[in-house]
Amino acid sequence: LLLGYLCGVLAGPDPRQREALIRLEASMQTGGQLELSDAERQLDALLFKLKREEMARAPFPPAVHFFKARDLIRASPVFSLLQKMPKGGALHVHDFSMVDVEWLVKNATHRPHCYMCSTDNRSIRFIFSSRWPKPLPHCSPWILLENLRAKMLNTTDFDDSIVGNMTLFTDQDPDAVYPSQDVVWDRFEQAFLAVWGLVTYAPVFRDYYYQGLTELYADNVMYLELRALLPEIYELDGSTHDAAWTLKTYQEVTRRFTADHPDFFGARIISTIYRGVNASMMTRAVEKAMELLRDFPDILAGFDMVGREDRGRPLWFFRDVLSLPAERGVTLPFFFHAGETNLQGTDVDQNLLDALLMNTSRIGHGFALLRHPVAKELSRKRGVAVEVCPISNQVLKLVNDLRNHPAAALMSENHPLVISSDDPGMFGASGLSYDFYEAFVGFGGMRSRLGSLKELAMNSIRYSSLTPEQQQVALTLWQRRWDTFVSENAF
Amino acid sequence: LLLGYLCGVLAGPDPRQREALIRLEASMQTGGQLELSDAERQLDALLFKLKREEMARAPFPPAVHFFKARDLIRASPVFSLLQKMPKGGALHVHDFSMVDVEWLVKNATHRPHCYMCSTDNRSIRFIFSSRWPKPLPHCSPWILLENLRAKMLNTTDFDDSIVGNMTLFTDQDPDAVYPSQDVVWDRFEQAFLAVWGLVTYAPVFRDYYYQGLTELYADNVMYLELRALLPEIYELDGSTHDAAWTLKTYQEVTRRFTADHPDFFGARIISTIYRGVNASMMTRAVEKAMELLRDFPDILAGFDMVGREDRGRPLWFFRDVLSLPAERGVTLPFFFHAGETNLQGTDVDQNLLDALLMNTSRIGHGFALLRHPVAKELSRKRGVAVEVCPISNQVLKLVNDLRNHPAAALMSENHPLVISSDDPGMFGASGLSYDFYEAFVGFGGMRSRLGSLKELAMNSIRYSSLTPEQQQVALTLWQRRWDTFVSENAF
Ligand SMILES: [Zn+2]
Ligand SMILES: [Zn+2]
Repeated sequence: LLLGYLCGVLAGPDPRQREALIRLEASMQTGGQLELSDAERQLDALLFKLKREEMARAPFPPAVHFFKARDLIRASPVFSLLQKMPKGGALHVHDFSMVDVEWLVKNATHRPHCYMCSTDNRSIRFIFSSRWPKPLPHCSPWILLENLRAKMLNTTDFDDSIVGNMTLFTDQDPDAVYPSQDVVWDRFEQAFLAVWGLVTYAPVFRDYYYQGLTELYADNVMYLELRALLPEIYELDGSTHDAAWTLKTYQEVTRRFTADHPDFFGARIISTIYRGVNASMMTRAVEKAMELLRDFPDILAGFDMVGREDRGRPLWFFRDVLSLPAERGVTLPFFFHAGETNLQGTDVDQNLLDALLMNTSRIGHGFALLRHPVAKELSRKRGVAVEVCPISNQVLKLVNDLRNHPAAALMSENHPLVISSDDPGMFGASGLSYDFYEAFVGFGGMRSRLGSLKELAMNSIRYSSLTPEQQQVALTLWQRRWDTFVSENAF
Repeated sequence: LLLGYLCGVLAGPDPRQREALIRLEASMQTGGQLELSDAERQLDALLFKLKREEMARAPFPPAVHFFKARDLIRASPVFSLLQKMPKGGALHVHDFSMVDVEWLVKNATHRPHCYMCSTDNRSIRFIFSSRWPKPLPHCSPWILLENLRAKMLNTTDFDDSIVGNMTLFTDQDPDAVYPSQDVVWDRFEQAFLAVWGLVTYAPVFRDYYYQGLTELYADNVMYLELRALLPEIYELDGSTHDAAWTLKTYQEVTRRFTADHPDFFGARIISTIYRGVNASMMTRAVEKAMELLRDFPDILAGFDMVGREDRGRPLWFFRDVLSLPAERGVTLPFFFHAGETNLQGTDVDQNLLDALLMNTSRIGHGFALLRHPVAKELSRKRGVAVEVCPISNQVLKLVNDLRNHPAAALMSENHPLVISSDDPGMFGASGLSYDFYEAFVGFGGMRSRLGSLKELAMNSIRYSSLTPEQQQVALTLWQRRWDTFVSENAF
C-alpha cells in the first residue's frame, strides 16, 4: 500500500497526497481501521476536545511518575470517561496484588487471631493462628493485633503504617525513595512478602479474590486472566490446602461472583512459579500444571514464571523442562513474561525470542520488543499479543516519561497488544482505567481516538485464552455494554 | 527472509534454529552485514570484553543524565577507544555551540574592547567596540572587562560565572536546575544570546570556527556539515559584513584548517534561519539561500530552520515559501529539523512527514519517527538519514534513560542514521565521542559491536551532502585512518 505512494510523493508537497498519507498513517494505528457509528463519532469528537485540553496540561500526567500523577489523573475528564468505558478483560494481573491494600488493612488485619512481626530489614510479616505462632527468623516477637489495637486511642496512624509496608505507593518523591531498579525491586518483594501471610489465610484468600473481582467490575472490566502462584492456603489451626484446592476455590469464588454480577463474564487462572527456582523444582511445577490442566480445564489457562527477569534464570535455561508437555503430547499454553528488561543483548534479553520459540500464547510486558526486530515480526505475524503494563514499567523504572514507552510505537502500527495493570495494589492503582489513561493519553497523544480504545478493549477478548465460542459470547456481552456507554456519553 | 523461518519455528525450540534467528537479528542491525577483517575481529573481541564490564557498572552511564554521567564516561575504557576511533563526519552541529565555552571565556572575553552587561533575567550580553557602546534595553550598564579584571586579585571565579552563563552544563542536579522543557529551552536560548556578541565579532568569529574544527579534529572527526545562521558579523568600529562575507569566511578558514591538517577532509555549511519568523522573512531567507548556493556551490550544502520545534511554526505553514526553489527550477537541498518533539498528533508532529514530502535530504533528530510508520518507511526507502543527537535529546528533556531513545530501535533494524552532537558547547560535550558512547553503549547494549561503529562512521560520509566523487575520496581517507586505528588497538 505504502509503496504505491512512494513514487508519486517525490513530485512535491501536494496537499491531497499529504492528506492521503496522514490518513494512511492514522489507519495503520490500533483501531485505525474501525468504522465508527454516528453515535461513536459524536463521542469521539467529545473525547478529542477533552484530549486537546489534556495535552495542554502542565505537568502532563503521562510524563510524570504515576505516584505524582495519580491526583492529576483522577481530576481528568478523560479519565472519568475511561472509567465508565467497558474495557473488556484484564489479561495480566497477579494474584496478590489485585486489591487496594487499604482493604487488606481495614478488612484482613482487623480480623481476630491476626499476628504481626517486624523484620530486620524494616518490613512486616503476618500470620493468623489459633495458638501463639512460632517465632519467625529475622523478625520481632509476634504481636496479636487485636491486643495492640485495644491499647491504642486511635489506630489510624498504625493502620497507615501497615498500608505503607504493603504497597510501593508513596506521597514522597518516588525517585528519591526508589533511586534504582535494585531498590524498587527489593521493596517490591518485601511488600509482597508482607501481604503473603494475610492473603494465604483461607477466609481472607476467598474474600480477597472476591474483592479483586469487585474492584475490576467497578472499573467496568468484565473478564480476568489471573497469574496465580497457587500456594498452599492455611487455616487457623495450621492445616493447609494444596494447589488443587486453591484452584478450585478460585473457580468457586468466580462462579459466586458471576452469579452475583451477571454482566461479569468470568475469570481464568495462569499458574505461575518463581523464576529463581532450580530445574527440578521447575519440573515439578510444570508437571503439576499439566495435572491441574487435566483436572480443571475450564479455569486453568496455562503456565508462566514470575519475579524479576533481570535477576532470574533465562527461559532458555529451562528449555528441557518447558518441552515436557509437548514431549508427553499435552498442550500446556505458555503466557511468558519476557523482555521486561533494559539490558539489551544479555542472556535475559533473549527471553523474547525464546518465549516465541516455545510457542508462548502472549508476551508479558515485551518492553524490549522494539529492539528485537525478529521477535517483533514473529509476534506480529503469529498474533502473539504483548501485554502492556505502562504504570508497572514506570514504577519499576524501565521508563520515565511514558510517551517514550515502546508501546507508543507498537500502537502506531497496530501491533497485537492489550493494556493491563500487572500489580495495581502495589502501585496505588486499581482496575484498568489508570493504565488505559497512560496508554490513551501518553502513548497516543492527539492521535489515538475512540477507535483505539475500542480496539484495545476488543483485543483483550480476542487475545484471551477463551475458546472462539466463549469469545463470541464475551464480545456480544461487551458490545452491549459498549453501545450503552456510547449512547450515554455521546452528547 | 524472515518469513521463511516462520513456519519451521512452530515446531519447537531447536537450538540451531534459535542460533539462526539470533544471527538473523544481529545481521539486521546497523553494521550487522559488514564482514570484519582478522584485525577487526580481534579489536571487536577486546571491545566486547570492555563492554561487558561497562554494562555491569552502577550507575550505568547512559541511564544517567549526561551532566552526571560525564565523569563516569571519561573514566571508561570504551570511551577512550571511541575517542581514538576515526568517526567520519559530524553532520548535525550548530555554528555557535561547536566550541568548549571555556575557550570562549579564556580567549574571547580576555581580548581588549570587550564589554559585558547583565540582563534582567540573570543572563549576560557582550559586545566588542572601539567606543563605549550604547546601553542595551533590559541590561545593566556596560562594563569594560579589561577594567573590571584589572581590579580583581583573582579572576577565576568571575570567569567561571561567565562560563556558567554560556552553557547548560552544571554540577548541580540537572533535574532540579531544569525541571521542565520550558525551563531548559529558556536557559538554552539565553545562553545562546550570551554567546552571540562574542562570536559575531569578526576576529573572534574566525578564531572560534578554527577552534571548532580543531576540537573536532582532536576527536578524530574528519568532516563537518555546520548549520549556520550566517548573521551579520561586526568589526570594532561597528561596521558589519553580510551573509556572503560570513560564508566566504567559513570557506577561507576551512581551507586554512585543511592546509594545516591535511588529513582533515573539510566542511560544508547548511544555512539556517530561526523558525519563529513570519512568511515574508522566510521568503527572504530562502531567496538569500538560493543566491548563496549559486555563488558558493562548493561550501553551501542547503537550508534548514532552527529553534524549538514545539514553539515554532510547523513546516507546512511555510509550504509555499519552501516550494519557491522548485518553482524557479533551482535545487536547494533541505536538511530539516523534524520530529524533535514528544507532542504526538499535534501540528508540529506533522513536520516529519512534511519534511519528507518536501524532499529533505536528511532529518534533524527525528525523535518522533517511531510513532510515524509512514514517515519511517519513507525515510528508510528513500535513504533519508536521521541525524541522531542522543545527549541533546536527553539534556533538552525528550528522554531520560538513553536506552529508551528511539534510535535504539532504529539501530536494531539498520535504519539510515548518523550520530551527531547538535550543540556540544551547550551540553558540556566536545566532538562526537560522547554521543558515540551513548549510542554504542546505551542504544546497543551488548549487541552493538565494532561493525556498528564502522557502519555509523561510514554512514556519516554516505549520507553527507558531498558528491559521489568527493565521498569516494573521503571514504578512502577515512579507511586509511580506520585501518591504522584497528591495527594500533587490536592486541
Ligand atoms: Zn507481571
Ligand atoms: Zn539542531
